[in-house]
Amino acid sequence: MVGRFGRGVLRTADERAESIPSMGELGLNHFAPYLLNRVAASWNADMSEELKRFDVTTLKMRVLAILSVSSGLAINELSLFAVTEQSTMSRTLDAMEEQGLIRRRPRADDARVRETSLTDKGAAAFAAIWPMMYGRFREMFEGVSEDEYQAFTATLHRIIENMRRSED
Amino acid sequence: MVGRFGRGVLRTADERAESIPSMGELGLNHFAPYLLNRVAASWNADMSEELKRFDVTTLKMRVLAILSVSSGLAINELSLFAVTEQSTMSRTLDAMEEQGLIRRRPRADDARVRETSLTDKGAAAFAAIWPMMYGRFREMFEGVSEDEYQAFTATLHRIIENMRRSED
Repeated sequence: MVGRFGRGVLRTADERAESIPSMGELGLNHFAPYLLNRVAASWNADMSEELKRFDVTTLKMRVLAILSVSSGLAINELSLFAVTEQSTMSRTLDAMEEQGLIRRRPRADDARVRETSLTDKGAAAFAAIWPMMYGRFREMFEGVSEDEYQAFTATLHRIIENMRRSED
Repeated sequence: MVGRFGRGVLRTADERAESIPSMGELGLNHFAPYLLNRVAASWNADMSEELKRFDVTTLKMRVLAILSVSSGLAINELSLFAVTEQSTMSRTLDAMEEQGLIRRRPRADDARVRETSLTDKGAAAFAAIWPMMYGRFREMFEGVSEDEYQAFTATLHRIIENMRRSED
């Protein structure tokens, strides 16, 4: 299938060896990394605005969300899932512990690893935030069918797998 | 169609009125905003690393890319496309003008607006960067068919449209 500009955006390796299309030929609106950045930045700006009334930063919200799904994570796992530097995560966890939102304790089979989990206060904080987040998420995908959504997230998983492989 | 957890991630308004699924029920890997953030952050980290050898920041690269597609943009248009604050964009344009990468001049029909365009040096700088960027983009979508890619960007356009509407 050819793309909207009369040929495919993704071309074969053979074609690529000869010449690559210019950014202008692809068009910003057909260049997925640009679109992905716009969507992520817009989601983050919305969240940051909405989270003010919950007195929580975007990163703290991410930690609450992640721990509400997987309890007992180590700091390197949390940094990966929250897509942030380990040093930033460390400061954030200190602050959250002080606020009584999380607790940390040594992992049973490896005391060098500290496991993080939500306190009741932390769980309550996320429970208060989640309906807003879920509502924003629904708005974001208004008019997108379940099939389209599944295809969309499948492509995102594929990208994440590709990017992980290229880091090895 | 039902989702991978035995029901749809996106449910109807009727169902929603009764109760909303928890983050844990959806699962992080089925929550698109989380996946979008991971992909965008990973792309940006890769770019920032790759761009070091071109002695250009991610934001400057975005300005070069955007102007290579649409010349003569005003600062508010550039800020929108580069998903950055206008104040940050203003400082970046000052630096790029000093480096001889861009030029600014009053718009013909409205002298209060300054139009930005690439100099030959700026165009050459982007021409040097683009093959690396295009290569990374190809790696990112390795194994994704043209049809899948078109569906993916169509969903991204839909999301951008939804987010724009909710800002009004």
